[in-house]
Amino acid sequence: MYERIWTVRFSDTDPHGIAHYPRIVDALHETSDMFMQEIGFPFWELAGERNFGLPLVDMKFEFEAPLHAGDEVRVTLTPDPSDRAVRFEYEAWVGDTLAFSGYEQRVCAETDGGAIEIPDDVREGFEAYIEA
Amino acid sequence: MYERIWTVRFSDTDPHGIAHYPRIVDALHETSDMFMQEIGFPFWELAGERNFGLPLVDMKFEFEAPLHAGDEVRVTLTPDPSDRAVRFEYEAWVGDTLAFSGYEQRVCAETDGGAIEIPDDVREGFEAYIEA
Amino acid sequence: MYERIWTVRFSDTDPHGIAHYPRIVDALHETSDMFMQEIGFPFWELAGERNFGLPLVDMKFEFEAPLHAGDEVRVTLTPDPSDRAVRFEYEAWVGDTLAFSGYEQRVCAETDGGAIEIPDDVREGFEAYIEA
Amino acid sequence: MYERIWTVRFSDTDPHGIAHYPRIVDALHETSDMFMQEIGFPFWELAGERNFGLPLVDMKFEFEAPLHAGDEVRVTLTPDPSDRAVRFEYEAWVGDTLAFSGYEQRVCAETDGGAIEIPDDVREGFEAYIEA
Repeated sequence: MYERIWTVRFSDTDPHGIAHYPRIVDALHETSDMFMQEIGFPFWELAGERNFGLPLVDMKFEFEAPLHAGDEVRVTLTPDPSDRAVRFEYEAWVGDTLAFSGYEQRVCAETDGGAIEIPDDVREGFEAYIEA
Repeated sequence: MYERIWTVRFSDTDPHGIAHYPRIVDALHETSDMFMQEIGFPFWELAGERNFGLPLVDMKFEFEAPLHAGDEVRVTLTPDPSDRAVRFEYEAWVGDTLAFSGYEQRVCAETDGGAIEIPDDVREGFEAYIEA
Repeated sequence: MYERIWTVRFSDTDPHGIAHYPRIVDALHETSDMFMQEIGFPFWELAGERNFGLPLVDMKFEFEAPLHAGDEVRVTLTPDPSDRAVRFEYEAWVGDTLAFSGYEQRVCAETDGGAIEIPDDVREGFEAYIEA
Repeated sequence: MYERIWTVRFSDTDPHGIAHYPRIVDALHETSDMFMQEIGFPFWELAGERNFGLPLVDMKFEFEAPLHAGDEVRVTLTPDPSDRAVRFEYEAWVGDTLAFSGYEQRVCAETDGGAIEIPDDVREGFEAYIEA
């Protein structure tokens, strides 16, 4: 499991003082980007150096509790790879409260091409973050 | 069914020339906002004047085809109300190609309170946009 | 002068009910993108087909009055070209109230290269929108 | 001087692989928010607990060098307070290269009211970050 802290900012919040959901999606996407960098395969190198990417094909999120400016949100990401795809499973906690959870389903695809098997080194990167 | 045209902008696009998905989510949310304005109950008046809102509890989207800068995307929204909730169903088309589809599930809730029945006038607003 | 109407959305607004300024900047940038499309040289074609762009080198904005969700903001853009650069001058009005004004200074530069003269056809596009 | 590292993300970048400037403005605004939190007066508490804010009245930025995904940008903020206003001066460096610099001019104003003097405790917070 990978985790990072996302601090909800004033500029993320709405007239009720709670985070706009497009800003939550920004934070989710930032988390996927941070995770790929953490395992040594940042999104920006995949395209340029490896000629493949992990485009999103499906996303689903449930929002359980609102987020407020100043909240220190613990966002966790657990990868769940299959042969040619990977699911990034997310949970977001503020203290003991689950704020939201869900997943992004991504396929492994050649740039301008079709689905391919996840390369072994990238798969090993994912596997190191799967719960034992 | 409500529909609007979303033009994908240069600033929405990534190094492959396709739209970043957080920018797609911005466009989705803008569509829900435009729809609520269209039926006479803009989000910004619900909170201030009616003391309720339609917070998001669940979202799911499938992405079928990439979007490029300059694409004129026909985004449709069909509301599907139940007693205390409404599902906004979306489809996004570029010509005859379905780019993405999915839904936002929203509950009808008092500001700082629990779920309530959708008021009749708002329900009538939704019903006018349900397919016959 | 080019103009468009920007409707401030609920998702643009902050706990005081006024637009976050990064959302104003999004609307400004969208306006520049709409203008370039209007004159027949959208940003996304310049790079791909003409091998030059108009990168931003300088921006300055003054904010006179807050914007609220639902405001129909008339954003005007007047281009002021010189040999190798163009200034986009902006004003944003809500009714008779000036909400903000300012400019973006852009240079005409080859992709991965230095400044060049603005091509004649693009210059003519700008000139058609200069005040007489 | 306050400083933070901003990592440019894939989702911040354009078809040339460089950061869209609205995403740079997001990072600037995030920096101001982080700074106010650092000195003990986060934006979200000023409004709620102190009945004043620091709305933006003027901004000016010069962009010297493009930013790329993966860049670790050192963003510095130096406050320059006067009686009823404060200027936040920014510089952004990638290694020894100045990427952009500029300022936000903010007034100290009561919520729904006019300009007031910066309260002493907030002023002391600013002064601790002024260069000697």
